[in-house]
Amino acid sequence: MSDPIQMRLPAVGLIGPGTLGRPIAARLMRGGRPLAVHARRHEAALSLIEAGATWCATARELAAVSDIVFIVVSDTPDVEQVLFGPHGVIEGARPGALVIDLSTISPQASREFAHRLAERGVDMLDARVSGGEASAIDGTLSVMDGGGDAALARARPLLDVIGSTVVHVGENGAGQVAKSCNQIITAVTIEAVAEVLTLARRLGADPGRVRAALGGGFAASSALEQQGARMIARDFSPGLRAAVHARDLGIVIDSAHALGLDLPASAIAAQQLNALVGAGEGDLDTSAMIKVLERMIGDYR
Amino acid sequence: MSDPIQMRLPAVGLIGPGTLGRPIAARLMRGGRPLAVHARRHEAALSLIEAGATWCATARELAAVSDIVFIVVSDTPDVEQVLFGPHGVIEGARPGALVIDLSTISPQASREFAHRLAERGVDMLDARVSGGEASAIDGTLSVMDGGGDAALARARPLLDVIGSTVVHVGENGAGQVAKSCNQIITAVTIEAVAEVLTLARRLGADPGRVRAALGGGFAASSALEQQGARMIARDFSPGLRAAVHARDLGIVIDSAHALGLDLPASAIAAQQLNALVGAGEGDLDTSAMIKVLERMIGDYR
Repeated sequence: MSDPIQMRLPAVGLIGPGTLGRPIAARLMRGGRPLAVHARRHEAALSLIEAGATWCATARELAAVSDIVFIVVSDTPDVEQVLFGPHGVIEGARPGALVIDLSTISPQASREFAHRLAERGVDMLDARVSGGEASAIDGTLSVMDGGGDAALARARPLLDVIGSTVVHVGENGAGQVAKSCNQIITAVTIEAVAEVLTLARRLGADPGRVRAALGGGFAASSALEQQGARMIARDFSPGLRAAVHARDLGIVIDSAHALGLDLPASAIAAQQLNALVGAGEGDLDTSAMIKVLERMIGDYR
Repeated sequence: MSDPIQMRLPAVGLIGPGTLGRPIAARLMRGGRPLAVHARRHEAALSLIEAGATWCATARELAAVSDIVFIVVSDTPDVEQVLFGPHGVIEGARPGALVIDLSTISPQASREFAHRLAERGVDMLDARVSGGEASAIDGTLSVMDGGGDAALARARPLLDVIGSTVVHVGENGAGQVAKSCNQIITAVTIEAVAEVLTLARRLGADPGRVRAALGGGFAASSALEQQGARMIARDFSPGLRAAVHARDLGIVIDSAHALGLDLPASAIAAQQLNALVGAGEGDLDTSAMIKVLERMIGDYR
């Protein structure tokens, strides 16, 4: 559109260099792209600072030097604090800036935040990612984004750096919706895998062979492949932490209640995950859902 | 093992040329292999007889001329009738014959039938298939079999004709277990897909885009791909009939009760399928499970 000589690369900042945020930041810095970084704890950003990132003491300070601000924090209150709390993004953001929120928050809150930012001339995109730390390191996350077309066009070159598939789901909040849907299907399918492996064992069949037989047909899925293998090997190291999955399903159930929706399988998966968290095992991989079933029938502990 | 000149091809018979049985029989006849056929209704076998199959008026008569007897009927009482009822297989079977039961029956019954046949010197294999009519026609069924190694070795050349993957799951009944597991995962995953597409629509996102976004990630499955597309297109022509799926889940729930097992997601899927059958819609594709959710919240009819 404009003369290439007049174009400059957008200045990019990232708030929340945690398990996902740190490898995403590292990928954004590849090829020498400068990056501003802010975290609640300075230590969380150390490896990035050593790699050349610029430390910002507050979200406001980071927003003041960034055209595009990535947010990768935990939940709805955290995003609200970072955007609108003291020394928040909104105090420092340049008009025309773009916020890309990668955190997992409620779709309703996501839409409201986008609205408040728009009143100050700041665009927002809610880009949910599927895939764990390994995918973040490899840049093979699956990105589902919600927001305006213009915002997506600006974000796209950066999203392509962190994800192998980027799908525009709809307006603000839609990325969050897609992420919720992803978490439902994943949790419910893992629960189904846990149930069939438990049933197979009780019926005297070899769970490993059953898994192999099912993997060749209509029932095949990553959950059967990966979590199924973990259940059989009794390897519950994360992976995908049950507490995170429980939190995500909690958002879904809250939405369902608010809408008066009946989502019975989602509710079952949420309860099984809650039982795992309640037993003090929220740090295990979600595949540990099989332990909830086993405990009910007095198998294992 | 023996001199090739002394070997003869086993004589093969098939009882139950229905939706699955007929294309399976047709594949077995390819290359000029002779086939004996029996059905409750002579008309069901007409196309096979025209293609050269030999009609047998009773299961006993068919067993008397067959080394290997395929059974493809509906449920446990039907298999019992065909094997042990008047003019049943057991009255005509040659010592050393092999019965391959492709019907969907309970694992416990399958083991009991194998035991009763073994007392008469007849081997049995329970070979469950996954995939519908189209896969039966193409010979791309996924076959999960339970039984002895020697029985499988004899059956293998014929199973390879009807299926693209043949997995030996374990002893008698294990094929049935694997099939039950397949039906659980399939039904539960379809329910999860129905829930997320309903949630997405209610949250204002486009269900088609959500499905596309999820298809690239961890939540991908044939259920999302195929039944998801049917739900969005409102195309509930079978496919995979809800009544058949409901019957299969009923077998699972009976097994779970008998074993004192808690399988909450399986139970939910069984109930949703029952609701569909109860509404007089058992002939629709399983993807119509989404209608149960919609009806609960007063959407559609």
